[in-house]
Amino acid sequence: MSYTATPEDRFTFGLWTVGNIGRDPFGEPVRKPLSPVEIVHLLADVGAYGVNFHDNDLVPIDASPSQRDTIVKEFKAALKQTGLVVPMATTNLFSDPAFKDGAFTSNDPAVRAYALHKTLRAIDLGVECGASTYVFWGGREGVETDAAKNPLEASKRFREALNFLCRYNQDQGYGLQFALEPKPNEPRGDIYLATVGHALAFIQTLDQPEMVGVNPEVAHEQMAGLNFLHGVAQAWEAGKLFHIDLNDQAPGRYDQDFRFGAVNLKSAFFLVKFLEDVGYAGSRHFDAHAYRGEDYAGVKEFARGCMRTYLLLKEKAAQWNADGEIQALLAEINAGEQAPLAYSREAAAALKARDFDRAALGARGLPYERLDQLTVELLLGSR
Amino acid sequence: MSYTATPEDRFTFGLWTVGNIGRDPFGEPVRKPLSPVEIVHLLADVGAYGVNFHDNDLVPIDASPSQRDTIVKEFKAALKQTGLVVPMATTNLFSDPAFKDGAFTSNDPAVRAYALHKTLRAIDLGVECGASTYVFWGGREGVETDAAKNPLEASKRFREALNFLCRYNQDQGYGLQFALEPKPNEPRGDIYLATVGHALAFIQTLDQPEMVGVNPEVAHEQMAGLNFLHGVAQAWEAGKLFHIDLNDQAPGRYDQDFRFGAVNLKSAFFLVKFLEDVGYAGSRHFDAHAYRGEDYAGVKEFARGCMRTYLLLKEKAAQWNADGEIQALLAEINAGEQAPLAYSREAAAALKARDFDRAALGARGLPYERLDQLTVELLLGSR
Amino acid sequence: MSYTATPEDRFTFGLWTVGNIGRDPFGEPVRKPLSPVEIVHLLADVGAYGVNFHDNDLVPIDASPSQRDTIVKEFKAALKQTGLVVPMATTNLFSDPAFKDGAFTSNDPAVRAYALHKTLRAIDLGVECGASTYVFWGGREGVETDAAKNPLEASKRFREALNFLCRYNQDQGYGLQFALEPKPNEPRGDIYLATVGHALAFIQTLDQPEMVGVNPEVAHEQMAGLNFLHGVAQAWEAGKLFHIDLNDQAPGRYDQDFRFGAVNLKSAFFLVKFLEDVGYAGSRHFDAHAYRGEDYAGVKEFARGCMRTYLLLKEKAAQWNADGEIQALLAEINAGEQAPLAYSREAAAALKARDFDRAALGARGLPYERLDQLTVELLLGSR
Amino acid sequence: MSYTATPEDRFTFGLWTVGNIGRDPFGEPVRKPLSPVEIVHLLADVGAYGVNFHDNDLVPIDASPSQRDTIVKEFKAALKQTGLVVPMATTNLFSDPAFKDGAFTSNDPAVRAYALHKTLRAIDLGVECGASTYVFWGGREGVETDAAKNPLEASKRFREALNFLCRYNQDQGYGLQFALEPKPNEPRGDIYLATVGHALAFIQTLDQPEMVGVNPEVAHEQMAGLNFLHGVAQAWEAGKLFHIDLNDQAPGRYDQDFRFGAVNLKSAFFLVKFLEDVGYAGSRHFDAHAYRGEDYAGVKEFARGCMRTYLLLKEKAAQWNADGEIQALLAEINAGEQAPLAYSREAAAALKARDFDRAALGARGLPYERLDQLTVELLLGSR
Repeated sequence: MSYTATPEDRFTFGLWTVGNIGRDPFGEPVRKPLSPVEIVHLLADVGAYGVNFHDNDLVPIDASPSQRDTIVKEFKAALKQTGLVVPMATTNLFSDPAFKDGAFTSNDPAVRAYALHKTLRAIDLGVECGASTYVFWGGREGVETDAAKNPLEASKRFREALNFLCRYNQDQGYGLQFALEPKPNEPRGDIYLATVGHALAFIQTLDQPEMVGVNPEVAHEQMAGLNFLHGVAQAWEAGKLFHIDLNDQAPGRYDQDFRFGAVNLKSAFFLVKFLEDVGYAGSRHFDAHAYRGEDYAGVKEFARGCMRTYLLLKEKAAQWNADGEIQALLAEINAGEQAPLAYSREAAAALKARDFDRAALGARGLPYERLDQLTVELLLGSR
Repeated sequence: MSYTATPEDRFTFGLWTVGNIGRDPFGEPVRKPLSPVEIVHLLADVGAYGVNFHDNDLVPIDASPSQRDTIVKEFKAALKQTGLVVPMATTNLFSDPAFKDGAFTSNDPAVRAYALHKTLRAIDLGVECGASTYVFWGGREGVETDAAKNPLEASKRFREALNFLCRYNQDQGYGLQFALEPKPNEPRGDIYLATVGHALAFIQTLDQPEMVGVNPEVAHEQMAGLNFLHGVAQAWEAGKLFHIDLNDQAPGRYDQDFRFGAVNLKSAFFLVKFLEDVGYAGSRHFDAHAYRGEDYAGVKEFARGCMRTYLLLKEKAAQWNADGEIQALLAEINAGEQAPLAYSREAAAALKARDFDRAALGARGLPYERLDQLTVELLLGSR
Repeated sequence: MSYTATPEDRFTFGLWTVGNIGRDPFGEPVRKPLSPVEIVHLLADVGAYGVNFHDNDLVPIDASPSQRDTIVKEFKAALKQTGLVVPMATTNLFSDPAFKDGAFTSNDPAVRAYALHKTLRAIDLGVECGASTYVFWGGREGVETDAAKNPLEASKRFREALNFLCRYNQDQGYGLQFALEPKPNEPRGDIYLATVGHALAFIQTLDQPEMVGVNPEVAHEQMAGLNFLHGVAQAWEAGKLFHIDLNDQAPGRYDQDFRFGAVNLKSAFFLVKFLEDVGYAGSRHFDAHAYRGEDYAGVKEFARGCMRTYLLLKEKAAQWNADGEIQALLAEINAGEQAPLAYSREAAAALKARDFDRAALGARGLPYERLDQLTVELLLGSR
Repeated sequence: MSYTATPEDRFTFGLWTVGNIGRDPFGEPVRKPLSPVEIVHLLADVGAYGVNFHDNDLVPIDASPSQRDTIVKEFKAALKQTGLVVPMATTNLFSDPAFKDGAFTSNDPAVRAYALHKTLRAIDLGVECGASTYVFWGGREGVETDAAKNPLEASKRFREALNFLCRYNQDQGYGLQFALEPKPNEPRGDIYLATVGHALAFIQTLDQPEMVGVNPEVAHEQMAGLNFLHGVAQAWEAGKLFHIDLNDQAPGRYDQDFRFGAVNLKSAFFLVKFLEDVGYAGSRHFDAHAYRGEDYAGVKEFARGCMRTYLLLKEKAAQWNADGEIQALLAEINAGEQAPLAYSREAAAALKARDFDRAALGARGLPYERLDQLTVELLLGSR
């Protein structure tokens, strides 16, 4: 196997990822900005399938209409030339000082209106470039002190904005699927809709819930120390895994956005295995950036590394599924009649009256150490 | 104000809380077990309104039917004598070795059947003692390695069990409201339905979602570093705040179950203020236990402390709502037309075309430092 | 008590704190930069005692010698005019791209030399402005991957740089005390000398350990979930508490640098009580910044809030020490002969042979719940 | 390579590790206790080199002198029969209720005396069984509230106890090396000497610091989200790495004590590489236990897994050191004159006057992404 990405792998990057210039809270930029066209070529060069963007990654917030049109024209030409596509677009509702207290949930109604205005135009831009998924990351939708905003009011505002935008999507016939991207904190002290679970629950309160899913990000769930796979599985089961952001992150820290697999190979493995096993057909989007020390040669290594690690783990997943000893253990673990009990008054009564050998149930040894160790050894390449 | 609890405050404790004997992973018990009847009297003595229990807090897992009946009779007599009520009951699906790989999600179908059997009987017991809320804490529903259990399969099993039990509740005419209690980890490496959000989303996939809500616990959300208030508000808005577990916890640690307010007074304040402001009418249940060094005199101090701190913070909440300077700041913060934009094609077009003074929106100073400092000074008693 | 700061309180701020312009990883600046002279006047206005700085807070990295001299002259004039002093200075070894892989521990020997060069000049600048304490925060001294740097080599480099600078301090007769400021991560994946403990241990390996102490920061230890008081006490006991950075932080998150007391009033209380009880005579330096939504009026509220909360807690500490019930509990808790056993062969033999009533030792109730609850009620102003 | 442990690998386990019976805060034991003799045979069976113990792992706390002697005799016979050795012993100062507020730092002087008494006898027992290293884990040395104990007083008590015990060790001619094992929390809210750094600093305040080193444990540092390798390297550089506890742990959670390598293979790799590269000659002690679901066959799999993973990673470390591409990158990264600047007045003056091309220093690309990716691919077995 070559571990070289092909379009079939559906690997995508954001303009902001390989285009990241290495500024952080304590340091100045270390890389010169690339133009969107340059980034498209860089991504084509490393074998990516697509490129995603925030409105202002492509069109500066203060561009004139004619500048906008020129930029879009050149960008689309670069797409055509390279064969890259734009599966996803999103709005930057966090960089401008106007959004310092949130966008859709800002306490200032004028800011909320501006956020809606900006998103409508950004949706048009995304659709114009071919996007079929539209992501909402509410990075500023939160608080540093709960004295300043009522969470019920914030929720109401967030919902109203999304309902409005769903109607717009429908009305325009865009056919976009919307995907909410949760995050627990940073840049706000606490961000609303902190996890995949909170976002999934919130979606059910929208007017058109069928139009809205989630965009889970590895780093965002791991910041809260949560098991990312479990959140992804819940989204998948609910039919809501509309997009996914792959990267890596040490738990309990600032948002690191490391190369996929850079922190925890085992959890990355179970994630890849899940996506491949269930047949997830969407983008494998890498929302990560290179270490700040890299030049653009290093940025390419970073991008290639994300994809190579995914492909390596995909191969491992197939190997795991084909490993006789592992599969025998799984069969042993899952032995017994698996059909659930159907409810009836009689079934309940019978179950209540049934005798169980509690001690025997507790005495059965579960060979999970062996199964996990086999997984480790398979990952290390010694099986 | 006296800060002495009255039944109107609806303060409840579990048999397992003031009855905790101080065993931990590294140490032996330090307090002699009290009988359920003794605990009822202890709670009456400190002014509690009610007492909740797991089936085996009241009736040992190996009690004979006649022993069970005697225990229940004596317990109900103590309730009658003291005036305490049992608003909530739940099942112990975690202590027995049979549940070492979970109860409803165990890989062993016989264990799953036994968990259902045990829950049916525990529901009967709870109802017999007067409970109207029934809690499900899936403490063992999880994994140490994702090699051992498919999260989709686990979800399916969990759902089937709850659907079965909802039918039973309905069929028996018990009228119980079910409440799921989420937790991210401990005692399992990762527990399914890790947060309030995940539980709320899961409920929507049940056959009878209207019967099922959540029982958020301060410590469980704070273990993951999440803002507890935000989860509670989301549950409240969804009409799903069926119960609440009050205690305290330093983030990113083992499950501490400290006295309410013992770690973070400010977040406890915003929680109490929320519950009182929205008119939450359910139990204020303290799922906490005394420090391991205490004797039963200290356990009573612990229990009184939970309730006194709640009442102190409730008084502070009223003071905050009545504070002229604070309310003036809130009015300033929330100034402007608050009505949301109703969608129409024309409204969207107009909004897209509208000019915004982005710089002016960003330049407005938001007096949240002052508001938060006033809150701090109010908490410290200097306002 | 007025809670209005006076010079005797020794409250200091950095130029970078009230001068923070509100840029973060996801957002652009929200406040216009103030000049150092303007910041001095702002701090005088709110009642601060002193102002600290990184070299480049005062003198831009690309200033010419004559520009530098003009800036310093104007700054010193502002100090004279306002009466503010400069107790501490430090070096910015993190903003410039040159330091992207560290300063003293960079893998590039030319960067290490440049870091030393920059620090020598910054020390001169600090001394010229009156500083007696010089802080070293090694914010870039770390790694994202341990493949890239050998921790032993990094330690050696760090030590060599500090030994060189100690010699310079001595040789110039500056009489500075050096203070190392630890932090576990951010902006690097992992930072060397992660905690107060690691820094204290490292100091003992220097050529002139007596010249070097620590500058613990609330937020930095709390990022790792550590008890800040315990680290401060260890530094104090070792005679190494040369400076302290006060702010606040939720555990397990990005570096928040919130207003002192904004997150956890109880831990802030125990800290203030400790500093006042032991007679810590150094600066109470607030290394924090206002919420990003504030204008400069709000920045002043932030600064006043830091100081007011300190003074409020100082008053509470005195009240705690004078509270009869609390002191009676402490006396009860610490009853018994407190003299330690002096070693002798005979004493050891006697101790080995001595009989202990283990059960009695374990049975004694420890009234810590009551003591903690009294502390909570004192903090809430109800005692 | 066989990955089968041999005595030369110096793999050790505690009696309490493979002998763990699977009790946790929420569940009853799942495995029947094994006798010390049975554990010795189990360990011999899986290929361990040695077995360590707490006094009460071997001799129950209430054993009579003659029972003690019989137990020791049988234990030593089993050692002789199997060839296993006892490199390390330690004291259980945490299980008994007497220690509920600490042992050496308890507020009760009688408890402190009892802790010393118990440790003297446990040291004798350890020496009798051949131990050359004696570990101190102060699991109960801490607080839930800082109201209850002065950290300065606690530190003084801890020091006095260790000084006493050092004198005893010397006086008896035991030649033991003492090793302090830090941990940040659990079972106490906060434990004193929270990290390797704090312990190293504390050792310097003892009367005989040369006799005392540290016993870092993977899980304990990772609970606080710290980089374990960095703490180990600091201990090694200080000549204080007297012992090491290997296991695994997800950050920011309860103490998990998982099989070595079970959570993060990459950090485990860098640790093994460090120990092998520097020539650490002490025990590789696994302070871990099997998942609660296992029977004793599974416990053996667990133990074998710890050792196999270590050996696999040791082989990877050798491969990394021999990999031409990796070594070429390291050479490139570390190019340039590495000798440090020796201090002289002239050297400092020259350095201050030297011109640096700051922009050029910042422009150099650092190929750490490539280096880290090569490490990942080597770990995955694809190099």
